[in-house]
Amino acid sequence: MAVFCDTALRLRLIATAQELAAPDLLVRGGRVWNVYTGEIAPADIAICGDRIAKVGSWTGPLAEATQLVEADGHVAVPGYVEPHTHPWPFANPLSLGEMAVSRGTTCLVYDQLMLNLAMGPDRFLELAQAISRASLPHVFWVARTASQSRFGNEDKFFGAAAIRRQFESEFYLGSAEMTRWPDLLDATRASPLLSVLEETRRVGKFNDGHFAGASPRKLAALATTGIRSCHEAITADEALERLRLGLWVLLRNSSLREDLEALLPFLESTTFHDRIAFTTDGAAEPHVDDLGLIDHLIALALEAGVSHNIAYRLATLNPATFLRLDEDLGAVAPGRIANINLLSNLDHPSPKLVICRGQVAARDGHLVVPVPSADFPWTEAYAGSAPDIPEWGEDRFILPASAPNPFPAANLVHAAITREVPVPLAAKGNGQWPSAADAHVLAVADRGGHWITRGIVKNVAAGLEALATTYTTNVGILVLGKSPQAMAQALSRLKRLGGGTVLMTSAGEWAEFSFPMAGIHANGSFAEGARAARAFQSVMRACGYCHSDPKYTLLFLTCDMLPELRATEAGWVRVKTNQILYPAERLTAD
Amino acid sequence: MAVFCDTALRLRLIATAQELAAPDLLVRGGRVWNVYTGEIAPADIAICGDRIAKVGSWTGPLAEATQLVEADGHVAVPGYVEPHTHPWPFANPLSLGEMAVSRGTTCLVYDQLMLNLAMGPDRFLELAQAISRASLPHVFWVARTASQSRFGNEDKFFGAAAIRRQFESEFYLGSAEMTRWPDLLDATRASPLLSVLEETRRVGKFNDGHFAGASPRKLAALATTGIRSCHEAITADEALERLRLGLWVLLRNSSLREDLEALLPFLESTTFHDRIAFTTDGAAEPHVDDLGLIDHLIALALEAGVSHNIAYRLATLNPATFLRLDEDLGAVAPGRIANINLLSNLDHPSPKLVICRGQVAARDGHLVVPVPSADFPWTEAYAGSAPDIPEWGEDRFILPASAPNPFPAANLVHAAITREVPVPLAAKGNGQWPSAADAHVLAVADRGGHWITRGIVKNVAAGLEALATTYTTNVGILVLGKSPQAMAQALSRLKRLGGGTVLMTSAGEWAEFSFPMAGIHANGSFAEGARAARAFQSVMRACGYCHSDPKYTLLFLTCDMLPELRATEAGWVRVKTNQILYPAERLTAD
Repeated sequence: MAVFCDTALRLRLIATAQELAAPDLLVRGGRVWNVYTGEIAPADIAICGDRIAKVGSWTGPLAEATQLVEADGHVAVPGYVEPHTHPWPFANPLSLGEMAVSRGTTCLVYDQLMLNLAMGPDRFLELAQAISRASLPHVFWVARTASQSRFGNEDKFFGAAAIRRQFESEFYLGSAEMTRWPDLLDATRASPLLSVLEETRRVGKFNDGHFAGASPRKLAALATTGIRSCHEAITADEALERLRLGLWVLLRNSSLREDLEALLPFLESTTFHDRIAFTTDGAAEPHVDDLGLIDHLIALALEAGVSHNIAYRLATLNPATFLRLDEDLGAVAPGRIANINLLSNLDHPSPKLVICRGQVAARDGHLVVPVPSADFPWTEAYAGSAPDIPEWGEDRFILPASAPNPFPAANLVHAAITREVPVPLAAKGNGQWPSAADAHVLAVADRGGHWITRGIVKNVAAGLEALATTYTTNVGILVLGKSPQAMAQALSRLKRLGGGTVLMTSAGEWAEFSFPMAGIHANGSFAEGARAARAFQSVMRACGYCHSDPKYTLLFLTCDMLPELRATEAGWVRVKTNQILYPAERLTAD
Repeated sequence: MAVFCDTALRLRLIATAQELAAPDLLVRGGRVWNVYTGEIAPADIAICGDRIAKVGSWTGPLAEATQLVEADGHVAVPGYVEPHTHPWPFANPLSLGEMAVSRGTTCLVYDQLMLNLAMGPDRFLELAQAISRASLPHVFWVARTASQSRFGNEDKFFGAAAIRRQFESEFYLGSAEMTRWPDLLDATRASPLLSVLEETRRVGKFNDGHFAGASPRKLAALATTGIRSCHEAITADEALERLRLGLWVLLRNSSLREDLEALLPFLESTTFHDRIAFTTDGAAEPHVDDLGLIDHLIALALEAGVSHNIAYRLATLNPATFLRLDEDLGAVAPGRIANINLLSNLDHPSPKLVICRGQVAARDGHLVVPVPSADFPWTEAYAGSAPDIPEWGEDRFILPASAPNPFPAANLVHAAITREVPVPLAAKGNGQWPSAADAHVLAVADRGGHWITRGIVKNVAAGLEALATTYTTNVGILVLGKSPQAMAQALSRLKRLGGGTVLMTSAGEWAEFSFPMAGIHANGSFAEGARAARAFQSVMRACGYCHSDPKYTLLFLTCDMLPELRATEAGWVRVKTNQILYPAERLTAD
């Protein structure tokens, strides 16, 4: 993989490197940290177009148009590289990228799961490339090879043909986190995923892993499948175990899992640090707004006593090498893309000035260039992708008399984890309803409402009367409620909103959060998104939500790779045994 | 790039990794050096087919067919990887590979320059792939993008279309050493090579560099061209300079340039050692026979005090990563190809036992498997590629009366380097001839004899009456002689031989060395080749040859990128100024 460079620019680089021509931009009077040798030395940086022509003392010509940046003794380090992340709903792929650049992260790799499902592969592929072309930082994509909530016609989205089409794009680097890894371990039957993984390697791309909770024995077996990495270590021992097996270790600190502190001691147990990188794995908007992205992870590492050389390597050349983009990204060196952070010194990874693709993009944490997301044709890009939300009466939400009683409910013990508990049902209308005060009936449908899966969730938020959202990992519709009436009302409001999240408190107050981008993302600025995310958290907390971030709860109640009970197209399922505890109801023939 | 693995084998690896099935081969009771962490720990190694299924204590089933290797406390390290080499004429791509395996080098990357020119791109591409498929070690190829001796229709061999065809093969990893780098530095005109380099990157392959003698300023400019590496540093400072620029540094120790000792201090001047590897860059057969290949370079590094961890990294995972083959080669880890060297301990890189592609291939430096080169269909592979050698009378070799007098002769000061000296000519027959006792007239022609370039070389070997060879870097015919008669005789003998090197001493004794593979390579075993190479060196020394290896002299007298005078299709040229001192004579219309 490579970021391409046309011959005209190469010729300018060659001339400028020899000081035969003036650069477009000259950063002078600073020092440069060399990512290859670990040295720091005074050097100017001459830039042509989006690439670095020369690093060293500049004695060549300057043109009138040459922009000068006085580095004033600051230290230049490479722009930070985020090898695996997800834009969350209150942001979007462009706005998260803009925020990232302001904090020195100039390259991001996004998982395309949800937008791909929401828009369909063909239209999304067009959009993904348009986003990559418009984006301020480098935006690359990785393609999912399986859903997080099994459904019937997955091949359309995840099959070999669909993957192959995506891989024709230079913006696709490989296959995304292999969440469905248990399938790979079946030694009696080859998972179709195996040939998808090999096909990915055949076209020079890589396979990203996701081996959350895999035992050492399973992990060792997964290391034989052609997967390159794992970002799911949560202890230093797990990280070391992965590295020993030859997996690239992406040390994660996300808003959902702030594991970096626990992981860092691992760095002392290995002689080599070249196959280790940082990742935020999708940090919530307020978290990013408060703390930053990769810059925050570097700061945490430095605070914990990690050396400058290792901390900055894990944020720059290492992830670029992991992504096989190291000929273009991850270094302040001739020929590389001019992504440069100027730091007051290496103790402070938050850049005073950020150069992204050859232009001064941010100073002191604030963007100083036009924001691409403001001009992006969102409306055209997403035309026809608005979620098709059914209008259902309250009868649709009542649990039928045939529902098991007591009902195997999902008790929420963590934003993303449920435990099975029985909940007794009482007769209600022509059906049944849970009597527990902290229980919500859950209904999950696909877009279009062809089927409905019902379940019960406890310990979400006692003061939440009802909630409906289009932000679920199955890219369907999730409704939670204390009564059938409130559920029907919430769904109806969601339909009027056109996609997003609506909720009603037990005091009867409504809050609405619009995700006009295919029902998955907001299309405003990152700052607006962070405000909305805080407002959503705040209202949920006021309703009694006591876990880390309610967004993850909505997202993952449909996720059939997390314990213990989940709602999928098949029904209300016990994940571990793959048992349908209460089947879905088909509502239409198609 | 990847070495592919079929699904059936993946399934066996997955089962065996979980100890649900028996391995084909179990190495037990040894220790394993972990290339990722630098740890050494006791471990068994379970192998299925050509891949490693598990590294760790084996408690699973063994089948009757399971082959057991008792490691008896030996240390397993990955098979060594040679990232850049050339088979020399007394060996060939298969026989050098067989020798390499016996010394623990289980992967070699070959430059295809000479065979490609000798056979033509289409036929050679077929052969290259057949060699890679038949070879005992992994054999990959890199494609030249320019000749080493300019000629008219280079595009057929080096143009974008020719390169593209080669890159469709999984056995081609990229473009070969960019010897014609001065062309890239012309800032006024884009060299067509620039787009070839970018096209290479576009298809996920890499560009290998060769920046011999480039000044710091030129080197810095070359680093902007999309080239990944350089193996031409000859001092520690030059190595550091290359690393700082972001070039992979291949530390060379060849028979022509034994530079490793001078280069090693460089390792102390960098914090990071992940972009450094060893290369032999084509070691002469006797040198390999005496000392080994990559195993020898590791030994030199260890003797110089380099740590085990760095020395073995530079021979294994680092070159595999450079080649982008690190998902398959360079590690003793699950899923990797089973290329394993068992060492008595890490102080002794010469393996006691070599496993190559999953089979025990060598013990104590001796192959214990059938030798693929013995069964290779050389005759069919090379049918029609015998060099077309003209039959010329002695008149062809006399310098015409029009030749400059004094003649700008090439004084050989090193096996590969000449300096210009004037040599007076005396009248002889209907032309002229040098009177100096240590001067040879040189004639170079293409195969087919369409043109002839004449020159004079001094200080080759006073006792050499005549020599003719098809082993030249222009893949033409080179004749040296003290008299026109002897030159004609030598050419005639070369024609009868069908390709190779023939020579006559001043005592009138003839020696012949046959290169039946397209006039470029011997087709015997490596041991036979080493004997022949020694015999050739010995007879040349007896004639007074006083430089390191006469093979390089024959090879490079036609090489227009080495100083100072060379013979090319254009004529007898002064390289630095690109001046034709004495033009070639066209002999036929085509």
